[in-house]
Amino acid sequence: MPDLSLETLAELTGAELQGDSACRVSQVASLDEAQPGQLAFLVSKRFVPYLETTRASAVILSPEHAALCPTNALVSDNPQLAYALAAAALSARAPAPPGVHETAVVDATAEIAPSASIGAHCVIGAHCVIADDVEIGPNCVVGEGCVIGAGSRLVASATLCAGTRLGRRCLIHPGAVLGADGFGLANDKGRWVKIPQLGRVVLGNDVEVGACTTIDRGALKDTVLHDGVKLDNQIQVAHNVEIGENTAMAAHVGIAGSTRIGSGCTVAGAAGIAGHLELADGVHVSGLTAVSRSLRKPGLYTSTVPAMPHDQWGRNFARLRQLDDLYRRVRALEKALQEKNGDVDSPQ
Amino acid sequence: MPDLSLETLAELTGAELQGDSACRVSQVASLDEAQPGQLAFLVSKRFVPYLETTRASAVILSPEHAALCPTNALVSDNPQLAYALAAAALSARAPAPPGVHETAVVDATAEIAPSASIGAHCVIGAHCVIADDVEIGPNCVVGEGCVIGAGSRLVASATLCAGTRLGRRCLIHPGAVLGADGFGLANDKGRWVKIPQLGRVVLGNDVEVGACTTIDRGALKDTVLHDGVKLDNQIQVAHNVEIGENTAMAAHVGIAGSTRIGSGCTVAGAAGIAGHLELADGVHVSGLTAVSRSLRKPGLYTSTVPAMPHDQWGRNFARLRQLDDLYRRVRALEKALQEKNGDVDSPQ
Amino acid sequence: MPDLSLETLAELTGAELQGDSACRVSQVASLDEAQPGQLAFLVSKRFVPYLETTRASAVILSPEHAALCPTNALVSDNPQLAYALAAAALSARAPAPPGVHETAVVDATAEIAPSASIGAHCVIGAHCVIADDVEIGPNCVVGEGCVIGAGSRLVASATLCAGTRLGRRCLIHPGAVLGADGFGLANDKGRWVKIPQLGRVVLGNDVEVGACTTIDRGALKDTVLHDGVKLDNQIQVAHNVEIGENTAMAAHVGIAGSTRIGSGCTVAGAAGIAGHLELADGVHVSGLTAVSRSLRKPGLYTSTVPAMPHDQWGRNFARLRQLDDLYRRVRALEKALQEKNGDVDSPQ
Repeated sequence: MPDLSLETLAELTGAELQGDSACRVSQVASLDEAQPGQLAFLVSKRFVPYLETTRASAVILSPEHAALCPTNALVSDNPQLAYALAAAALSARAPAPPGVHETAVVDATAEIAPSASIGAHCVIGAHCVIADDVEIGPNCVVGEGCVIGAGSRLVASATLCAGTRLGRRCLIHPGAVLGADGFGLANDKGRWVKIPQLGRVVLGNDVEVGACTTIDRGALKDTVLHDGVKLDNQIQVAHNVEIGENTAMAAHVGIAGSTRIGSGCTVAGAAGIAGHLELADGVHVSGLTAVSRSLRKPGLYTSTVPAMPHDQWGRNFARLRQLDDLYRRVRALEKALQEKNGDVDSPQ
Repeated sequence: MPDLSLETLAELTGAELQGDSACRVSQVASLDEAQPGQLAFLVSKRFVPYLETTRASAVILSPEHAALCPTNALVSDNPQLAYALAAAALSARAPAPPGVHETAVVDATAEIAPSASIGAHCVIGAHCVIADDVEIGPNCVVGEGCVIGAGSRLVASATLCAGTRLGRRCLIHPGAVLGADGFGLANDKGRWVKIPQLGRVVLGNDVEVGACTTIDRGALKDTVLHDGVKLDNQIQVAHNVEIGENTAMAAHVGIAGSTRIGSGCTVAGAAGIAGHLELADGVHVSGLTAVSRSLRKPGLYTSTVPAMPHDQWGRNFARLRQLDDLYRRVRALEKALQEKNGDVDSPQ
Repeated sequence: MPDLSLETLAELTGAELQGDSACRVSQVASLDEAQPGQLAFLVSKRFVPYLETTRASAVILSPEHAALCPTNALVSDNPQLAYALAAAALSARAPAPPGVHETAVVDATAEIAPSASIGAHCVIGAHCVIADDVEIGPNCVVGEGCVIGAGSRLVASATLCAGTRLGRRCLIHPGAVLGADGFGLANDKGRWVKIPQLGRVVLGNDVEVGACTTIDRGALKDTVLHDGVKLDNQIQVAHNVEIGENTAMAAHVGIAGSTRIGSGCTVAGAAGIAGHLELADGVHVSGLTAVSRSLRKPGLYTSTVPAMPHDQWGRNFARLRQLDDLYRRVRALEKALQEKNGDVDSPQ
């Protein structure tokens, strides 16, 4: 672990230093557990009570909390970002040793940059191109004709099917599968006939793909994730989906085929988005929400049904089947009352 | 890639040829991107505008669009099926070389057909039987006593636990896990005790299993998927489930234990089906729908809650907790109005 | 397979023996399929009809069915538990041979107990500590600095990222990924910046993790699953989640970051629990339910929306968008009727 001065960290994070610029820290820690020599942070009001008694040598926080800080402070308008940058500087991982592990199986036609690292038991197919500083951890499979841009990393146990393309600095977590066949079937009198899936998966730069997330190859054109897309674990991206720059999605999200999602969107956990839709830039989708129509305006969309005590649910949800009937009965009541009022008003 | 005449393709697909039977095509492509020498297709009205200007040498389409086609046409009542067959013929993958890769670990008691291909770093357990033309891609694990029928393929990184049986021409995508223990627990005064899972997973012929889909072994009897079942990615099939012929399910579907699903069913993405239910042949379930009772009649069933702007959701969904109360109040109003009408009608 | 007397099984299961204590059985089987020499069980009323004609040599059942049993019986107040214990005794798997497979890649600094078994193509990182009787099946990856307690088993194709700790007798199914990065991002003017994920995954004793389940490492502190937690397949546990003793969750459940779940809870399939919540001990969540607030009282909570025929759904669910309006209209009607009653009551 490196050991950095607060002066250096202020520069790295763009924060304003309050206190001793020569003070050095070697690790990040939470406010309540930090020891001298460690850097803590305050990004949520909930943790303000811990600020007073923290033993951290310095704290990253926003201007509104700066006056409360009992020790050195790195004051930032975006303390979460400042923390991300400081933590990255203090926790930098040693790169894997360059070269191909002796147990890896690499096709003779694959081009592997000398600075790349190919881990134990990896299998690299024909005609792959693996650029500088790529790191492929143990037990990964990289199919024929894949291209992996400089600085990308497959952590371990990931699978790229034939033809998958990754930009620079992509990060692929274990169990992820990129480029499996899309789910394309034609029906022949009840029997399903497979439609060959001939497109690819193409990722831009700085794309992160979570553990056990699956991104299917296109049916004919490609499935495309643009620069800066971030996917959590166990997400399903179907064939021919396109996801715009800097869109982020939480775990268990599913996106059906050919849907196009704009840039700067967020999709919360377990939301499902139907196929052949368009979501505009800046659309945000709540957790466990079903998107079944295109969303052409930015904003937050929701259909989460919040949990309630089971008895209460039993009473109320049985009525969902009667909702249209209820609506019609209210309209009839309104009409009846209006007519009665008419009766009452006019003849008497 | 082969290069086929339209005459051959008409024969293969059962389509009627309109135009030059000697014309040859070597690839499929979309209407808007196709070049001379390529075969395009029109399966959705949305793409009719591209038909007029396509540069494809031939187009697969339905009779209603045949007159609009500016080039050779393969006219079919089921253009999607014709496309599937033509694309398969034009994109046939070279089979993997037969034999066992030198890095694969194969138990001495396993029977591997000479025409089968076992990829790098595979592990094949004792007493497995692997039939003709089976292809097992890199990094797969096939546990003790598995049986894999002729022509089946494990693409890569798939795991078959002990005793799993695959029919002919099955296709198992990366990350899929067949035969892991079902989730069976007995409760001993708050502590969970594992119930041994002693059944198997048994797949018929022509079953496709998507990436990271999991199919658990039966508790005692088997979990069974009949011929022609097609599962997309990240589906969970619990112990002792039975799925009928030619039923297809989209990604993220979950089926709880011992449920029996008929043949010719479809289940859309992220639907959940509770345990110990029966779904008749020809049942169709919409996306994000919860099936908590048996469905004994064919037809489409739905409980998808469609997304709405968050404000609108906030106003309306809070009322779900009051729905039963609202129903009772409407009934009270109806009664009150009826009594009042009675008052009005009779004495006066 | 062993062959045990009913006397021995009665002792093992705490059941009361009714019949021939010297009778021996060698396998468990279902009531309808059991043969002489096999042990069947009755845990659900649904199967009472099979009891009369069973060919089993003995049946595990509850006192209420004991009189109906045509053969030897093991009578237990908790027949499911008795079955679990008997089946475990009768189906005990032979342990894997101790030692490191010749194709495994084990770092020189890893400490592997002599009784542990490391399977083919495993990769074990630096400074790992693997205790007695641990069994790591083929194609697993165990990252740097992992600690695996005595008697734990990774079935196959599982991945433990650096620093993961397992207690004793844990069971990790294929495709599971423990310790991948949590989904932590800071936003820098629209661009996402990764927040380093520096915590670990820590499992207590007797924890079971299903196939393709993912448990993310903590951001700074650890993600913790206490003793006896049981997770089914394809569950997502986000960073810094804490799950209490003997809590069990079914497939496709997702838990967002920093949520704390009590002990003795159950969460049914595909339920989603938002981040930063607290669930009390003894909370039970129904399938496909969204938990978006803390649940501080034990009990069952539900928001499952049950499937209905699609036409019925179409009529009723369109009204969800009008529910607040409907509520207001009912209130207006009540007011109108009250005023009218006032009119009627007073002046006349």
